[in-house]
Amino acid sequence: MINYNPVELILAKRNGTALNEDQIRNLVEGFLSGEVPDYQMSALLMAIYFQGLNKEEIFALTKTYIESGKTITFPAELKVADKHSTGGVGDKISLMLAPIAASLGLTIPMISGRGLGHTGGTLDKLESIPGFRTQFSIEEFRKLVLEHNCALAGQSKDLVPADQKIYALRDVTATVESPGLITASILSKKIAEGTKHLIIDLKIGSGAFMPDREKAKELAELLISTGERFGLKVKVAFTNMNSPLGLAVGNGLEMIEAIEYLKGNPLKDTKILTSELTAQLLVSTNLAETAEQAIAMIEEAVKNGKALKKLEEIIVAQGGNPKVIDDYGLLSTTKYKLPILSPASGYVSHIDCRAIGYALIHINAGRMKVTDSIDHSSGALLIPKIGDFLEKDEPIGEVHCNDQIKGEEVVKLIQKAYTLSSEPITEEPIIFDIV
Amino acid sequence: MINYNPVELILAKRNGTALNEDQIRNLVEGFLSGEVPDYQMSALLMAIYFQGLNKEEIFALTKTYIESGKTITFPAELKVADKHSTGGVGDKISLMLAPIAASLGLTIPMISGRGLGHTGGTLDKLESIPGFRTQFSIEEFRKLVLEHNCALAGQSKDLVPADQKIYALRDVTATVESPGLITASILSKKIAEGTKHLIIDLKIGSGAFMPDREKAKELAELLISTGERFGLKVKVAFTNMNSPLGLAVGNGLEMIEAIEYLKGNPLKDTKILTSELTAQLLVSTNLAETAEQAIAMIEEAVKNGKALKKLEEIIVAQGGNPKVIDDYGLLSTTKYKLPILSPASGYVSHIDCRAIGYALIHINAGRMKVTDSIDHSSGALLIPKIGDFLEKDEPIGEVHCNDQIKGEEVVKLIQKAYTLSSEPITEEPIIFDIV
Repeated sequence: MINYNPVELILAKRNGTALNEDQIRNLVEGFLSGEVPDYQMSALLMAIYFQGLNKEEIFALTKTYIESGKTITFPAELKVADKHSTGGVGDKISLMLAPIAASLGLTIPMISGRGLGHTGGTLDKLESIPGFRTQFSIEEFRKLVLEHNCALAGQSKDLVPADQKIYALRDVTATVESPGLITASILSKKIAEGTKHLIIDLKIGSGAFMPDREKAKELAELLISTGERFGLKVKVAFTNMNSPLGLAVGNGLEMIEAIEYLKGNPLKDTKILTSELTAQLLVSTNLAETAEQAIAMIEEAVKNGKALKKLEEIIVAQGGNPKVIDDYGLLSTTKYKLPILSPASGYVSHIDCRAIGYALIHINAGRMKVTDSIDHSSGALLIPKIGDFLEKDEPIGEVHCNDQIKGEEVVKLIQKAYTLSSEPITEEPIIFDIV
Repeated sequence: MINYNPVELILAKRNGTALNEDQIRNLVEGFLSGEVPDYQMSALLMAIYFQGLNKEEIFALTKTYIESGKTITFPAELKVADKHSTGGVGDKISLMLAPIAASLGLTIPMISGRGLGHTGGTLDKLESIPGFRTQFSIEEFRKLVLEHNCALAGQSKDLVPADQKIYALRDVTATVESPGLITASILSKKIAEGTKHLIIDLKIGSGAFMPDREKAKELAELLISTGERFGLKVKVAFTNMNSPLGLAVGNGLEMIEAIEYLKGNPLKDTKILTSELTAQLLVSTNLAETAEQAIAMIEEAVKNGKALKKLEEIIVAQGGNPKVIDDYGLLSTTKYKLPILSPASGYVSHIDCRAIGYALIHINAGRMKVTDSIDHSSGALLIPKIGDFLEKDEPIGEVHCNDQIKGEEVVKLIQKAYTLSSEPITEEPIIFDIV
């Protein structure tokens, strides 16, 4: 039984009054039990979008989310760490970071999501591996992590169910972009899964949800200060999402790129991002004293094959076919590989990453709705980055697809996503700042 | 089938973009058909609360509301007029205004509401008359109006169903107080019922929904300019809701006060308000040239008994027992009449009218939820107005009730609603302004 009239609490928030922990708990628990109907919760969420949540409210909401379900604890001597990305195009960093960090002695209970809209999801990329399982009970997940230092899985329905139900509602009511709600949603999952050290890849740019630096800084500050109150050490990297990351966009293609990385063939941008983010975790857990030392350890783990071996171990542990490591045909074979030619000559001044993400949905490399199914083999390889010079009709990538007509449409949509300039464009940094 | 993704439209409104008529129509019709679920509509309503609606959007929403149901038309030669009040405590003006105006040749298709929270409703007051019916089909209602120049009824489900459904949602999601939504809601009903001349009693003060003058002025401007686009002449009176209106608060008791008024025994405040508001309609319809002339006509209609005769005619036409006019025992007889004594000496500097309205719910003179039933006989008589001097223990009113213990609680709550000052307080005007 809830102790408040929900209308009075919506009214209070709408008028800018902060809610206390008991009120927030009543609203969230009432929503889970059905006493607070979804139409009242969505009105409250929109009021929160406009009036915000103060730090006490964010703390109370995060706490309520965590306590709405089961939680995982690991032995205190383990250095439990994780990464969260706010989502991008071609963002396969977790596929390298997790096995590298696990091979270096960190414990990585990585609960990931699926792609939606223009952004990809780690689970979809992993599921391009035949047999790879991502759904486990909390007990199975914990066992996998303890045995292999790492597991990569989807969220169990018992973990922060309040966030799951509220997030689904935010998604269909235009109430996702609220710093307080984002903070509670990200942190509650990580705290509930037992993580003590977290690096957040907060993406900024044309392929990111967060368009401006000011808002990103505000969010970072909330993530760090709220995490601290739960004993979670949070570092936030502001990273560049103005060019697709690496070469591949599409699930199987990104998995291949990740394996190539671990075989010692990294690309420039993914190498910087993977090393720097992993290094933050090594330093935070005192496995390395400095970022430089951490990066040397990371390079060694790739060079000596330990990281690739760890990936293989994870694939086997989660039911996947480890032969994918040597036979990429198991990961992605499409009927058509259509070349993308540069539509003009010039320096790349802007890439509409969001448009590229949405274009690839036409060939089922991504999804519009959570219920849409995916073609794991399709996607694109895209060479140009901001600042590159392109000659007209120079090959700049290819679309891998199983439907030629749709594939050709995608080629055109991708061509349109590049803006060329006659003036040279300064290359952009991969990482703007880490706080 | 709706042509838009509702999330995109909620997002647009949330970000301050105006919606066009087609988009508004899709949202409203989609909500009625179930394609737009209530949780999306409530998020949209909260976004509208914060971002507002521009005049084009208000026009489109009003139009969509009207076109969502049936409409009533009257012969062009009739002078069809109505009054709307934003709600107050002791506000029985419609009970006098309707028969007076009808007796003077106006056509009054008055669709009224029920009491909720601290405010009373015309339908509840009328239903204190044994047998009085307030629910009619649109065809029956129109026939009554044509035969008797007036009918006082509840809203048919076929009249502006979109507003009915959206209003019910606003009520439980703290999204009532939006000038654009209020404008569309008030005007759509009046235009659909066939009214061409409307006086709006926009109450300001401790018993009103509209606490400040600035917001009231903004709303008045929207009501007038939007009405104009539909050929509806709107006048708005800003009136004083800092003291309960007249003497009685409670359904049967207010009905008695209204009959006494029409018998030639009006109270000062209700007389000013009834005459001035009715006069606006007589002038707007050219039945009178000036407000002074109109007031003389109104006084004559009361003096010569025509207005009372019209009320009797309406009571009979709507199935009520006309004997109530001479036998008030049919309207209100309670077991207990508890005196209210002034708790101290001093000048009345503030009356918490809202608290008085809520107090009377304890003896079922009002209701908290639309589904609560009402005791039509209970209520209170309250003498003091702002500026009156009270002696300690002087009788200042009485509570009429059927439960002594609850009645005594109500006496105490009402006593607390009066703030007394040792300094004389200037009497306040009944009407601040008419525009």
